Amino acid sequence: MSTTEQMLESYPAGLGGVDKSRLAEGIDACVDCAQVCTACADACLSEDMVDELRKCIRTCLDCADMCGTTGRVLSRHTGYDANISRAVLQACITACQSCADECAQHAEMHDHCRICAEACRACGEACGQLLDSLG
Amino acid sequence: MSTTEQMLESYPAGLGGVDKSRLAEGIDACVDCAQVCTACADACLSEDMVDELRKCIRTCLDCADMCGTTGRVLSRHTGYDANISRAVLQACITACQSCADECAQHAEMHDHCRICAEACRACGEACGQLLDSLG
Amino acid sequence: MSTTEQMLESYPAGLGGVDKSRLAEGIDACVDCAQVCTACADACLSEDMVDELRKCIRTCLDCADMCGTTGRVLSRHTGYDANISRAVLQACITACQSCADECAQHAEMHDHCRICAEACRACGEACGQLLDSLG
Amino acid sequence: MSTTEQMLESYPAGLGGVDKSRLAEGIDACVDCAQVCTACADACLSEDMVDELRKCIRTCLDCADMCGTTGRVLSRHTGYDANISRAVLQACITACQSCADECAQHAEMHDHCRICAEACRACGEACGQLLDSLG
Repeated sequence: MSTTEQMLESYPAGLGGVDKSRLAEGIDACVDCAQVCTACADACLSEDMVDELRKCIRTCLDCADMCGTTGRVLSRHTGYDANISRAVLQACITACQSCADECAQHAEMHDHCRICAEACRACGEACGQLLDSLG
Repeated sequence: MSTTEQMLESYPAGLGGVDKSRLAEGIDACVDCAQVCTACADACLSEDMVDELRKCIRTCLDCADMCGTTGRVLSRHTGYDANISRAVLQACITACQSCADECAQHAEMHDHCRICAEACRACGEACGQLLDSLG
Repeated sequence: MSTTEQMLESYPAGLGGVDKSRLAEGIDACVDCAQVCTACADACLSEDMVDELRKCIRTCLDCADMCGTTGRVLSRHTGYDANISRAVLQACITACQSCADECAQHAEMHDHCRICAEACRACGEACGQLLDSLG
Repeated sequence: MSTTEQMLESYPAGLGGVDKSRLAEGIDACVDCAQVCTACADACLSEDMVDELRKCIRTCLDCADMCGTTGRVLSRHTGYDANISRAVLQACITACQSCADECAQHAEMHDHCRICAEACRACGEACGQLLDSLG
């Protein structure tokens, strides 16, 4: 059991009907994607062809910020405001889609972009499934 | 001229048609609101009636995170991805609306909630005007 | 291999002599601790005895912020400024120590505090070992 | 009166003997520096000579993260843990020093680096004065 799941298990109140396993998957995907995007921006910055990766660096930094915020918002539960959660998840899905598309264009040349595109796709999907389950 | 405006003036590339003055107002409102929400969550935590302010604390923390991310995303310009900006602004407007509504309920009793509600309304409006101007 | 390690493996430049495995452990511990501290602050806020957990909530929020920043700083490598890394690691170790001590006082009563204290101890140790290895 | 000062004035508890005006200056300097560093990293990324500004971009991103965290930690007061505040301020001073030195090297060529170096020096000084006043 991941520490994210352990924390959800130890939560002293209800989760407002949110599916616990989808929530844990969403949080973990956001946290993972934020780290990968931060690292990918930095790896792009080390490439010889950095001038061709400017947009990729920016998109990675934006996506890292949005995933970090989403992971934190999803880690707060009680008194749950579904409006905020839905809006934040929607913005995260958009950021992940943009970043996955951008990184995918450099995936054959740069392994860090391939890994980042995969993390963004996974995060977008986990957020989408969580959003759907919120009803 | 604020440092935000100075930085926009010194920007070495175009801003993709974004209105510079609305952009500066949006960034400054986000940065200000993030600080006020962080401080309001902490002030609520110091109130005797903290048990009645749990939802307010959470909403302030969520809004602080979302405003912080929006301020950073808006501070990155070139290669500008309007999809991310729009989605992030929309989520920020929603968070500010929720936080303004929640803090407004405690505004008569707690001055920090009154100031926070005002900062959230101002940030929501600045983000709304910027979003409209993006076309 | 974790995505953190995969990203380090795909890095296009040297890591300035930093031990790759200690670095991955430090990043992962920071990322994990930031999530756990965010969740513990929220769980404390849901407890009936929230008025006795105010300091714990604040310390968890501070530690979450410091671990998040440390995880991002450690995820940027080239052009490596050892002064910043050392100072950030030192602050993270201090925050983890304070949060572990505070949460440990509530560990028998609240499982989330027990898990959080453990995550803080683990993060402090991983940061300490990384700091030592920087020479 | 800035909103930061208004929030300090409305605080329902004591500030643990911290000088209110130095605290407000420290918070405002951190918040301002975090925005300027985020914008400077992005402006550097738009320069033709981006390959010579890689280290500057990284240092700006590190400094932005550290200033953001310091601004939030300083915005939480009661139950005040002076150990965390001191360690975080120390790390922020180091990051600001490194970033000011790095940006100063490009200040004659790039106005954004000049403004950023000034913001970093101002933030380092405000944090230093606050740290001294903590005793």
